[in-house]
Amino acid sequence: MDGISLEPIGVIHTPFKEPEEAPNQPGRSRGAIGKIEIYPEYVLGLTDLDGFSHITLLFYFHLSKGFELMVTPRMDNKKRGLFATRAPRRPNPIGVSVVKLERIEGNILHIVNVDMLDGTPLLDIKPYVRDLDPVEDFRIGWLKDKVRFKDIDVADDRSNSCESDGFHEEAK
Amino acid sequence: MDGISLEPIGVIHTPFKEPEEAPNQPGRSRGAIGKIEIYPEYVLGLTDLDGFSHITLLFYFHLSKGFELMVTPRMDNKKRGLFATRAPRRPNPIGVSVVKLERIEGNILHIVNVDMLDGTPLLDIKPYVRDLDPVEDFRIGWLKDKVRFKDIDVADDRSNSCESDGFHEEAK
Repeated sequence: MDGISLEPIGVIHTPFKEPEEAPNQPGRSRGAIGKIEIYPEYVLGLTDLDGFSHITLLFYFHLSKGFELMVTPRMDNKKRGLFATRAPRRPNPIGVSVVKLERIEGNILHIVNVDMLDGTPLLDIKPYVRDLDPVEDFRIGWLKDKVRFKDIDVADDRSNSCESDGFHEEAK
Repeated sequence: MDGISLEPIGVIHTPFKEPEEAPNQPGRSRGAIGKIEIYPEYVLGLTDLDGFSHITLLFYFHLSKGFELMVTPRMDNKKRGLFATRAPRRPNPIGVSVVKLERIEGNILHIVNVDMLDGTPLLDIKPYVRDLDPVEDFRIGWLKDKVRFKDIDVADDRSNSCESDGFHEEAK
């Protein structure tokens, strides 16, 4: 297969101008306000989206360069396999975050609970539907002990945000 | 910004050889068994992943060609904005699915609840942590009435699977 090429459909504006300002732990993105500017040629595709309270954003870690397969997450002091973390430096540096959709004005989406950097290129929007099934067993691996020491919101927010480890966890 | 180039890190094997065989409604992927073959150069990054019961897969809709901004989902009879659906034909045709991780053997991940096509290129794996917060209001737009007529599992599975609309919903 040939390489896969992507083009941004918009750009995400957030309060976080530098990597070190981005939420460095899962709970910290709660309440952070941002907006998405959708490029004009895609605006028609936003039809019906205002019925959803939450949306899943796929975006490009535009400041990410290269990757290592073992990284030390910010909330840990031990190296972990890259795919067991949400570190931004990945073979395919795509982030996934669920944000709250407050309202849509033309080509602008007003969103809450952002954790990505200002200027992040947006790749896709998908409607988010909450998982209603409380039955299945969940295990969260090396995160279990980390979560126990913090507010339970940590676990909550992590599921909503793939940026929750911040931009620096692999720098240790 | 220049275009973004991606390279698969592996390939997903599923029982679904043709688009029309893939689960065409959200509940139908439950129990479907698949496996992921991770390319050798990325296997080290799987370290610690076996502690997680569920993982988020990012993958490429490799059969998807082009897109339209208004599409008719299979579970609806009305055209909807593309970004309010999970149709595979998108400006950036990337799918997101949460699957259950049964076990890892070397470079093979045995997974359950697959809904993508056999041979789908894998782009990324992220650990999945369930959303524990039952407080926030959720609205699911045009899907609300569709879900009401079906098993509640429909809503459940949709949140776990971005492929749930299948490959054909925009063909109507």
